[in-house]
Amino acid sequence: MDFKELKQFLCEHDNYIILTHKSPDGDTLGSAFALCSALRDMGKRCDVINNENLPVRYNFLYDGYYLQEFTAETVVAVDIADEKLFGSRLAKYAGKVDLCIDHHISNTGYAKNTVLDPQASAAALVLFEFFKDQGIPLNDFRAMCLYTGIATDTGCFKFDNTIPRAHLAAAELMKYNIDFSKINRRMFDIKSKERLKIEAMMSEQMEYYFDDRCSVMTLTSEIMSHSGVEPAEFDGLASIPLSVEGVDIGITIKQRHENVFKLSVRTTDAIDASAFCKKFGGGGHIRAAGCEIEGSLDEVKRAVLEQVQNVLKQADENR
Amino acid sequence: MDFKELKQFLCEHDNYIILTHKSPDGDTLGSAFALCSALRDMGKRCDVINNENLPVRYNFLYDGYYLQEFTAETVVAVDIADEKLFGSRLAKYAGKVDLCIDHHISNTGYAKNTVLDPQASAAALVLFEFFKDQGIPLNDFRAMCLYTGIATDTGCFKFDNTIPRAHLAAAELMKYNIDFSKINRRMFDIKSKERLKIEAMMSEQMEYYFDDRCSVMTLTSEIMSHSGVEPAEFDGLASIPLSVEGVDIGITIKQRHENVFKLSVRTTDAIDASAFCKKFGGGGHIRAAGCEIEGSLDEVKRAVLEQVQNVLKQADENR
Repeated sequence: MDFKELKQFLCEHDNYIILTHKSPDGDTLGSAFALCSALRDMGKRCDVINNENLPVRYNFLYDGYYLQEFTAETVVAVDIADEKLFGSRLAKYAGKVDLCIDHHISNTGYAKNTVLDPQASAAALVLFEFFKDQGIPLNDFRAMCLYTGIATDTGCFKFDNTIPRAHLAAAELMKYNIDFSKINRRMFDIKSKERLKIEAMMSEQMEYYFDDRCSVMTLTSEIMSHSGVEPAEFDGLASIPLSVEGVDIGITIKQRHENVFKLSVRTTDAIDASAFCKKFGGGGHIRAAGCEIEGSLDEVKRAVLEQVQNVLKQADENR
Repeated sequence: MDFKELKQFLCEHDNYIILTHKSPDGDTLGSAFALCSALRDMGKRCDVINNENLPVRYNFLYDGYYLQEFTAETVVAVDIADEKLFGSRLAKYAGKVDLCIDHHISNTGYAKNTVLDPQASAAALVLFEFFKDQGIPLNDFRAMCLYTGIATDTGCFKFDNTIPRAHLAAAELMKYNIDFSKINRRMFDIKSKERLKIEAMMSEQMEYYFDDRCSVMTLTSEIMSHSGVEPAEFDGLASIPLSVEGVDIGITIKQRHENVFKLSVRTTDAIDASAFCKKFGGGGHIRAAGCEIEGSLDEVKRAVLEQVQNVLKQADENR
């Protein structure tokens, strides 16, 4: 579906519900609330439906939001590549999505109609360009939503998925009254007291191998339960090991059960993380991948470090 | 001086040396090497002169650089607001700068000719717009230099000095062959092993006051000498205390001498950091300021926390 057809679709339908993906981030939420606001301004009835309670850090996106009461007729998914990402509460919408607006090249095509731009840095960038192309007006709120989506998915224009169009969009969105530096601070800088404590704890126990080219962070069940901190606070630590100067492969080992450990592997361009994890039956992206390994912690570490030695040797030979 | 006059100036002069400011950052270095490269391509002789050894983290800016041999005739300063920022090695150029290209509103006007755009997010943004306006060609290297300058000074487009023109410049610069995500990773994510250790140590000993609205990090001479880490690694920690959720005023207390402590104060928009530090004879910006206080650590803390209590009370009343 192109932008013109999308506009026509939106005009011809009504009573929308917009789905966001589970563990919602700034892109799925920003896109959903921007589209909802635009549809309501077009005289349509529209609600945003989420799988779980919305994260407090994004409350600026939904603070003024209110539910409308109507019978849903048109189901829209934003930033959702696969029905598996609906989560349990939204599972009932599988097979019933009328329109999907997305930017993931891995989109499974589950919706009856799809607007997909796999080059776009964010779903919010697709929406921004659609609004602009089809003359759907922006306002401060919608600009803030779309900026948040683009900033989230590009790591504030830092990651290599940042394309010139993302910067051009930001330049236009910033002309609206958005406190973007406050938004960025909330999204990228602020941590809970507990999170800061955990990061400190994990950084202090980091182990280094092979002339500090490999760093390993280990999260045992014991560490997690003794910390007195919510398990969710232990998510997303996997980028820490690779943040150390000189490290080419940063590994996070997280205990799942007695003898089961989950590996998160992050690498520089010297090493293929996906190939590394495939050796252990896992997979992922070239710079970020994962796998699960059974055995005692000692056994797991030994196997992993042996494989690290192999790939570092290979990397040296390829230089 | 406007861009046309600047172009004329550059054409009419030769045998340039370009000065960067002490403790050089990505903006002063990026601007200097971009301008040097452009001048050399115009057939001029040009060197970049620095007060100290260049930081390794910026080696991509000077890796292919070589000194030319000539007698300096024209002295240019980039991103230097004040002759005080020359540093001891460049002090001899005070009063001898022919041209200054800058973006600091505080520029003292020390140069014979000044190209100043106080709205610009970075000196590199001024240079980019000058190159574009006057048809001075970019190439991969100069684009990388200018991108680095703009990204540095905006905290990768995160800070509130990021203007739409900074994004427009980035969009154009990214069309050149720049590995911007690698540059950003080096500038914003990578830390030395020692730095990670120190940050962890400081985070673990952070103290919280007044319902966690104030956080205090204390760096005594003892901590610093016992850590076995270079003193320079203890610079720039001042943003950590304010990175905690709910904190409105984050304070770093760093010991200077036996009974002298330096305060770095960072605040949210609830509190004026500059006014806070003025109470102790210091000053600075509204969100980042500093001062020096004499007394024992206990005395200093007591005085500081008393003042914190006052400003928090005031902040509550203003709500």
